[in-house]
Amino acid sequence: MSKGRVCLAYSGGLDTSCILKWLLEEGYEVVCFLANVGQEEDWEAVKAKSALLGAAKMVILDLRREFVEELCFRAVQCNAQYEGRYLLGTSLARPVIARAQMKVAKDENCQFVSHGCTGKGNDQVRFELAFLTIDPAIKIIAPWRMPEFFNRFQGRLDLLDYAESVGIPVTSTKAKPYSMDDNLAHCSYESGSLEDPSQPPPVDMWTRTDDPEKAPNTPQDIQIFFEKGLPVKLVAGGKEYTDSVEVFDKANEIGKIHGIGRIDIVENRFIGLKSRGCYDAPGMTILRLAHLDLEGLVMDGKVRSLRDQFVTHNWSELLYNGMYFSPEREFIENSLVFSQQLVNGEVRLRCYKGNTYVLGRSSPDSKLYSSEESSMDSLVDFSPVDTSGFINIQAIRLKKYGLQKAEAGEAL
Amino acid sequence: MSKGRVCLAYSGGLDTSCILKWLLEEGYEVVCFLANVGQEEDWEAVKAKSALLGAAKMVILDLRREFVEELCFRAVQCNAQYEGRYLLGTSLARPVIARAQMKVAKDENCQFVSHGCTGKGNDQVRFELAFLTIDPAIKIIAPWRMPEFFNRFQGRLDLLDYAESVGIPVTSTKAKPYSMDDNLAHCSYESGSLEDPSQPPPVDMWTRTDDPEKAPNTPQDIQIFFEKGLPVKLVAGGKEYTDSVEVFDKANEIGKIHGIGRIDIVENRFIGLKSRGCYDAPGMTILRLAHLDLEGLVMDGKVRSLRDQFVTHNWSELLYNGMYFSPEREFIENSLVFSQQLVNGEVRLRCYKGNTYVLGRSSPDSKLYSSEESSMDSLVDFSPVDTSGFINIQAIRLKKYGLQKAEAGEAL
Amino acid sequence: MSKGRVCLAYSGGLDTSCILKWLLEEGYEVVCFLANVGQEEDWEAVKAKSALLGAAKMVILDLRREFVEELCFRAVQCNAQYEGRYLLGTSLARPVIARAQMKVAKDENCQFVSHGCTGKGNDQVRFELAFLTIDPAIKIIAPWRMPEFFNRFQGRLDLLDYAESVGIPVTSTKAKPYSMDDNLAHCSYESGSLEDPSQPPPVDMWTRTDDPEKAPNTPQDIQIFFEKGLPVKLVAGGKEYTDSVEVFDKANEIGKIHGIGRIDIVENRFIGLKSRGCYDAPGMTILRLAHLDLEGLVMDGKVRSLRDQFVTHNWSELLYNGMYFSPEREFIENSLVFSQQLVNGEVRLRCYKGNTYVLGRSSPDSKLYSSEESSMDSLVDFSPVDTSGFINIQAIRLKKYGLQKAEAGEAL
Amino acid sequence: MSKGRVCLAYSGGLDTSCILKWLLEEGYEVVCFLANVGQEEDWEAVKAKSALLGAAKMVILDLRREFVEELCFRAVQCNAQYEGRYLLGTSLARPVIARAQMKVAKDENCQFVSHGCTGKGNDQVRFELAFLTIDPAIKIIAPWRMPEFFNRFQGRLDLLDYAESVGIPVTSTKAKPYSMDDNLAHCSYESGSLEDPSQPPPVDMWTRTDDPEKAPNTPQDIQIFFEKGLPVKLVAGGKEYTDSVEVFDKANEIGKIHGIGRIDIVENRFIGLKSRGCYDAPGMTILRLAHLDLEGLVMDGKVRSLRDQFVTHNWSELLYNGMYFSPEREFIENSLVFSQQLVNGEVRLRCYKGNTYVLGRSSPDSKLYSSEESSMDSLVDFSPVDTSGFINIQAIRLKKYGLQKAEAGEAL
Repeated sequence: MSKGRVCLAYSGGLDTSCILKWLLEEGYEVVCFLANVGQEEDWEAVKAKSALLGAAKMVILDLRREFVEELCFRAVQCNAQYEGRYLLGTSLARPVIARAQMKVAKDENCQFVSHGCTGKGNDQVRFELAFLTIDPAIKIIAPWRMPEFFNRFQGRLDLLDYAESVGIPVTSTKAKPYSMDDNLAHCSYESGSLEDPSQPPPVDMWTRTDDPEKAPNTPQDIQIFFEKGLPVKLVAGGKEYTDSVEVFDKANEIGKIHGIGRIDIVENRFIGLKSRGCYDAPGMTILRLAHLDLEGLVMDGKVRSLRDQFVTHNWSELLYNGMYFSPEREFIENSLVFSQQLVNGEVRLRCYKGNTYVLGRSSPDSKLYSSEESSMDSLVDFSPVDTSGFINIQAIRLKKYGLQKAEAGEAL
Repeated sequence: MSKGRVCLAYSGGLDTSCILKWLLEEGYEVVCFLANVGQEEDWEAVKAKSALLGAAKMVILDLRREFVEELCFRAVQCNAQYEGRYLLGTSLARPVIARAQMKVAKDENCQFVSHGCTGKGNDQVRFELAFLTIDPAIKIIAPWRMPEFFNRFQGRLDLLDYAESVGIPVTSTKAKPYSMDDNLAHCSYESGSLEDPSQPPPVDMWTRTDDPEKAPNTPQDIQIFFEKGLPVKLVAGGKEYTDSVEVFDKANEIGKIHGIGRIDIVENRFIGLKSRGCYDAPGMTILRLAHLDLEGLVMDGKVRSLRDQFVTHNWSELLYNGMYFSPEREFIENSLVFSQQLVNGEVRLRCYKGNTYVLGRSSPDSKLYSSEESSMDSLVDFSPVDTSGFINIQAIRLKKYGLQKAEAGEAL
Repeated sequence: MSKGRVCLAYSGGLDTSCILKWLLEEGYEVVCFLANVGQEEDWEAVKAKSALLGAAKMVILDLRREFVEELCFRAVQCNAQYEGRYLLGTSLARPVIARAQMKVAKDENCQFVSHGCTGKGNDQVRFELAFLTIDPAIKIIAPWRMPEFFNRFQGRLDLLDYAESVGIPVTSTKAKPYSMDDNLAHCSYESGSLEDPSQPPPVDMWTRTDDPEKAPNTPQDIQIFFEKGLPVKLVAGGKEYTDSVEVFDKANEIGKIHGIGRIDIVENRFIGLKSRGCYDAPGMTILRLAHLDLEGLVMDGKVRSLRDQFVTHNWSELLYNGMYFSPEREFIENSLVFSQQLVNGEVRLRCYKGNTYVLGRSSPDSKLYSSEESSMDSLVDFSPVDTSGFINIQAIRLKKYGLQKAEAGEAL
Repeated sequence: MSKGRVCLAYSGGLDTSCILKWLLEEGYEVVCFLANVGQEEDWEAVKAKSALLGAAKMVILDLRREFVEELCFRAVQCNAQYEGRYLLGTSLARPVIARAQMKVAKDENCQFVSHGCTGKGNDQVRFELAFLTIDPAIKIIAPWRMPEFFNRFQGRLDLLDYAESVGIPVTSTKAKPYSMDDNLAHCSYESGSLEDPSQPPPVDMWTRTDDPEKAPNTPQDIQIFFEKGLPVKLVAGGKEYTDSVEVFDKANEIGKIHGIGRIDIVENRFIGLKSRGCYDAPGMTILRLAHLDLEGLVMDGKVRSLRDQFVTHNWSELLYNGMYFSPEREFIENSLVFSQQLVNGEVRLRCYKGNTYVLGRSSPDSKLYSSEESSMDSLVDFSPVDTSGFINIQAIRLKKYGLQKAEAGEAL
């Protein structure tokens, strides 16, 4: 008799193939699920493999559009960045994948969901918090945190032995020297040979960006348009792209060619460990810079400062920590969207050997910037005497500070 | 009879030469002051010109060391950045210049200080708040905000006419198409032909960076060492630089060659106007990245997050707004310094065609990063079951949120 | 020939009567404006006096409803408080008064607006920022900042002399020993004899609260209902009040009797001076406490913490600084309103001798609180083992801190 | 053979007596520890009981001084408050207790520490995070989270049966209708009959405050002195108290008599549950108000605002969440201490029927407040014209906002 139905996040790789077999052994029926968030994949092969191994069914869903529109472009709109550099590629994909997996679980009458995330990473947290928020009654099977599993499979060799014994086809027995997570937003690389943070990653590691040192000698100029802070058009090579996924694909393609968006960092995982990660995120890097630049032209300075400190910082941290489906993310995102009402316009950029340069920007709507007004030479609508008053009033408080320091004999 | 003595910030240019003459005309004695903060200058020529025009004295002070050590390296330590991109080059120089000018004013028995800043910019605020904090009794003469001056000199032509009439030597009658401010931290470019933010700056504008497109085809690798978050050594081309000014000079030199650190932005001035500025800050860009990277390895994640939100954001904004000499800057800087106690180590970087890449980093002291611990494969000192509890407890609150959304019929 | 029409904020007192006469003398036509925000006033007498003195017209507008609904209840919803204690009574009234005055100015074809605020206070800033935001072209006459006025009228005696000379009726020649500003939200007391912060205010000063020491010996219990964080019903003495103004009036009345809501503080004015102010705000104090208490029951803890740090702090400071009509206030208020969607329910309170105590609270909607769940004894839906994992994961980072301190020989 | 030595936090009550016996049964040697943080206790009786039950030893340590000086007064200095009302009494005691228990554990060669905290509360987190930070190798026995314990003892009756069977003397078989935690800072009341947040607590519940309705009809005036933000002297009834513990005791005594410092709230526990708690904290309430008031007189307004938003908010939350021994608490506390350098002076207060009123305050050092300067009538050192400039510059940005709203047809 079956212990119940499990919806397993299945990639066709060694780990989740072993988990699939193990779940079947343990007496579960298994529905496999694979999300298409833009990664390189032989979809049919994965499907065939799941069937071969005994899965009751395999569901593959194309989530690219919702991934781009709901998550990636929201991150662009937010200038999202974790710890000053990481553009959150993996964190952004998790909510749409988890939501789709829960939908499949429900449609397929699964009482359980399962995944192959390890016990030290961020992804287990992101997936499971999403699962539990979407359905507090769902039961989660996380084999890499179950002693009966992790004690039995203590390394890759154990998995390979098991694969052989239960008939899991293994295309290559040579493990990647690091683990990767690929989606439209980026490819991440971590673990294995990358664990020594003092050593550079292998030169042939990067998949979403060509080597900046081998990038074209000729720069490429592009133009990106925004409405309410969201990318709505990209112009490159004389062509216009307006479909959200096409805009993102094109930005990725151009960024790839010019080697844009590689980073190599040591970051702080939610669970308190430090971890070294490398990421290449060409499209996100380009779009984020364009958005950041346009905001300079069209956003009120005080709103921007508050938004930076409150919204950008917190939204990024919440996404990283797997708190997408949370009241605080919803609360903060509401602020974000409100702040973007006037972020309309276009930015021209030059892509060249790993870098993106802003060439210019304009906005049809905003009146906040005025050459006339900002011109040092013009006194139209401006009384310089006012600034004296402005300074003198600001100085009231500071003079007291200066006097107090002087009395205390402390230098300024 | 003299109206008193004025200490004038004198650069030898058209504006401050006219102001010098005008102050003399108005009946003041004038002591000229010029700060060496690393700008290109023919110091002797400026001195000679001031004497020729009638200055009672001219004092030139070399402030490079205090500028680098007290301001530039503090900004590096802070990862300081205004509005997500500007590294604050001009803002950083103002406090040391203002302090030195006030010292000269005092030494020379001046009752007044004067400068050539325009009435719409940030610099007048930065200088004058500093003057007034250092000596609340000082009297400030800001000609560009005095109707008797700005009504008389309504443009460059008026100044040129005046210069001719009073015998001010003018080396070139052709005005720069934009204004520049140069110091060790950066050169800034604004106004004039740059006032249209949709147009790129002239290609020959940049002075502190070579064109990235013409930069060497061979990357250059360097190594930067930090103690308590401050740069203490730079290794490049087999040589070591440990003197603070030499470290900074060398970083600038390497960054220049490789075209690193150009930005072009529209920013929000303190007085509420938007303004377009271009800046090239090679050394600051390289050092800031190195510092940011090292913090990833050695800083506690929670302290870092609080520091980012509170210290980095506010310190940058305060410096930009001319609030260096203020109790709040002192308050925040105390936090900054405290946060950097363990930021010791080195970072290896590659400079190439406008970009800097991190190659690796290490720290002699920090135990926060451990390959063993962060390794997904190792279970030494880690019980994966704990993470289940961690997730479940985090989920208590989120489950309620999910249920409430479901009851309200709202999708997640 | 008239210099133009001025809309003057006119209270009938000595200052604004003198300003009215002075404006007429200076050649302006004057339309007087008086806002009814709930202060004690003999409206007809003020009107008659303005006519007597020569005003072209006097407009009195009842703004109580919009004051209560748009400002006071918003402040309650925000738990607004400046510097930990001040409930912002005066700051709240300024936006509605300024907006109405500008409307009158427009309706009456005035090119100017004028007021009697002094040059050191907050109110001038609040009024004028509002005026200029509503109509950037409006011209402002602020006599107390005009040398021709403040040099002529250097004190109360000068005003009295002038009043006598131009026929301004002065009901009492004895000045109040302090100045007051009264509205539905509070009465404020400052200046004069209150300027020594070491001395308590006169016992007979307070107007909106009776002396707590003479308040009834019998406490009074009331009940306040909220919808989306706004007060919608007050039940007291067996009667229900649901009209917003009635709810507020009743809260004020009860608070007055029981002496609730007096504070005496030294605060930081926007212009950088410190100032001593006394305020009695009975209704605001009661409603704010009730709201704060209900939030404990129904708001998500993380949203609340973010709201406290970001919204409550900034909204209060913005209001105090006269930034009601600003993009940042609008930005922050949008967050506030979003945070209050589920703040529905009722709070029972006891009023007694200067204090308000919460007796209990309940909410029809919120499922966030559950006696069952929070009960230490119940293990329904709770696995205590999870908490071990939660603690152990939190401890990962802290253990490293402990070790590092131990190695450094520093005590914890 | 012994399983090892356990240092058990032992109170002599039913729970920890059962745990003591159970640990012995399980084969451990047990050293009992009890901290004196000012609670009501018959110390000798507890000690005798532990011996009777078989403890190898019992150590009672008087931690009152370090509790007051390191935690309570630090909280006063910080104006610490959780969720707008709770003064953190229990949270403040935990760090000193945990540190002392770990010291006893070390001195007594215990490999284990144990406590009687339940699995849903905050205290388990506070204690255990402290234990693990102080010694990452310590082993923790938390019986209420161990299935072998909580499944065996499912309620008070099970404990009573066990007590009888193993000879634990039970003085009263009638359970308190709620649980209490008493220390110098407060007494807390929660659980049991308090779990219905709509019902007021029993009138006879409170132990550290008398009923305000029965408090003396005569108010009592006292005076509190601060140095660097810490209470250093209390004057009451003609006597001076300068010893820190005496100051605190006296503040508690006076607050008790006048019924000061009761609150009743629903709060958010760290683990995500809501909980209703009642607290009476007379001394903390009085001292916190005095400190808050003095800061108004002596602290720079901008530093205060930053401190409120950053330090007060975060320090309070960290303490509540058991993060006392953490790098972030140390980081924030460093800021706090720095901010208090000039918080010197005295505050006079009136205590009366549940409330404390400020009568006046003064400071020997601070020059920030000046009656002369803040006086609306004085123009010494103040040029009213400056304020016009100040307002006009602030308005530059706001005018654009007003225009943009008008163009969009949106009302202000």
